[in-house]
Amino acid sequence: MLNTYNSEDKVLVAVDCIIFGFDKKDLKVLLIKRDFEPEKGKWSLMGGFMKKDETLDQAATRVLYRLTGLHDIYMEQLYTFSKVDRDPKDRTISVAYYALINIETHNQELIEKSSAKWFSIAQAPELIFDHTRMVEHAISRLRSRASTKPIGFELLPDKFTMKQLQELYEAIFDKELDKRNFINKVNSLDILIKLDEKDKTSSKKGSYLYTFDEVKYNKKVLDGFLFKPVPYVLHPNNR
Amino acid sequence: MLNTYNSEDKVLVAVDCIIFGFDKKDLKVLLIKRDFEPEKGKWSLMGGFMKKDETLDQAATRVLYRLTGLHDIYMEQLYTFSKVDRDPKDRTISVAYYALINIETHNQELIEKSSAKWFSIAQAPELIFDHTRMVEHAISRLRSRASTKPIGFELLPDKFTMKQLQELYEAIFDKELDKRNFINKVNSLDILIKLDEKDKTSSKKGSYLYTFDEVKYNKKVLDGFLFKPVPYVLHPNNR
Repeated sequence: MLNTYNSEDKVLVAVDCIIFGFDKKDLKVLLIKRDFEPEKGKWSLMGGFMKKDETLDQAATRVLYRLTGLHDIYMEQLYTFSKVDRDPKDRTISVAYYALINIETHNQELIEKSSAKWFSIAQAPELIFDHTRMVEHAISRLRSRASTKPIGFELLPDKFTMKQLQELYEAIFDKELDKRNFINKVNSLDILIKLDEKDKTSSKKGSYLYTFDEVKYNKKVLDGFLFKPVPYVLHPNNR
Repeated sequence: MLNTYNSEDKVLVAVDCIIFGFDKKDLKVLLIKRDFEPEKGKWSLMGGFMKKDETLDQAATRVLYRLTGLHDIYMEQLYTFSKVDRDPKDRTISVAYYALINIETHNQELIEKSSAKWFSIAQAPELIFDHTRMVEHAISRLRSRASTKPIGFELLPDKFTMKQLQELYEAIFDKELDKRNFINKVNSLDILIKLDEKDKTSSKKGSYLYTFDEVKYNKKVLDGFLFKPVPYVLHPNNR
């Protein structure tokens, strides 16, 4: 009979949070140093156990706040990991959540409260258990999302240059994109407002600043589109 | 401390399987009548509890086979549901899986073994617990998949007419599609092989049969595309 269960089959349910940020150059992930056994001293995602009287969403929110001070972070459930021996101490399945946040906006909360630290994806340390697989899974979801919906609203400052937007996409897809194709694609989406202001930090001439047109951006999130990252190739007339 | 847990926080983990099929006309879902309390006699998804020594994937495969006789079904994990009171008997979270199968191919296994029954999505009965939400979530995932990747290989017979393919998309999106736009879109994907055979069951003239070009189909699954279901509108010259 399938309705019967053995109370030995009850397991612990963990939540683990993959928090992505972008610092105008690199895609980063927020990690914390584990201060208890097993695997004490190793880097880890922000995690904890779901309590019997809360939902997974509530557990993820509570754990993230407790470990980092971050609140009002919109997280999405990603995938549930269940390898039998993933936690050597006790049978535990883990529900991974992920979020995209603006590092600048949230840095104050982080500094005040926590021992969490941002790592560039490419330079992230070895992680405990199956956390590396969780990060890989989240990057794959992030890429698939960036291929069919606009991305950046959650990761960029209010005003940004076209170059910063391109660098965000390059960081997500981990490949150089052709500048002209990128600009054409972004312009065809019609989700940006060009401002009269320039960012002069990187050149005398300066680069125009842009902001997202929130209404059009949100419409494209609903409608979807296909963004195919074209690998960087030299144009004949650039050679 | 976040490493501590209360053994009272251990919970049961269920798996529930949403099996979609297509019978050349309607999108269907496979349901089973529950023969134990609570909610005895009501319709339900195929479900059971994960055992301590198996993964979620293994549990889903075992439960589906035991209840329906279906085997070698590729299922994907969908989402984990965790409302505190979702199962009135005991705190249980449930990991939903979904699959697309060809009804004809698998009907023999089903008839031999099980009391499961196919229901058209539109005419599905009331389901226990949060199973209706699970089905809705799975339909939403199915639509998003059908919008960015070809679909049909798993759901249609080897040879099918263009009309059957259109009816599959109409069933998934629950809206009539314009025939000409649909054919243009499908042809532009270049994933079909037109056969020299005709299906003559629905008209004297007959309709050409098609089959999927598996290599091109699989390439499009990897590359992705955007299929936007254009609502049915009369063409000026059809009026």
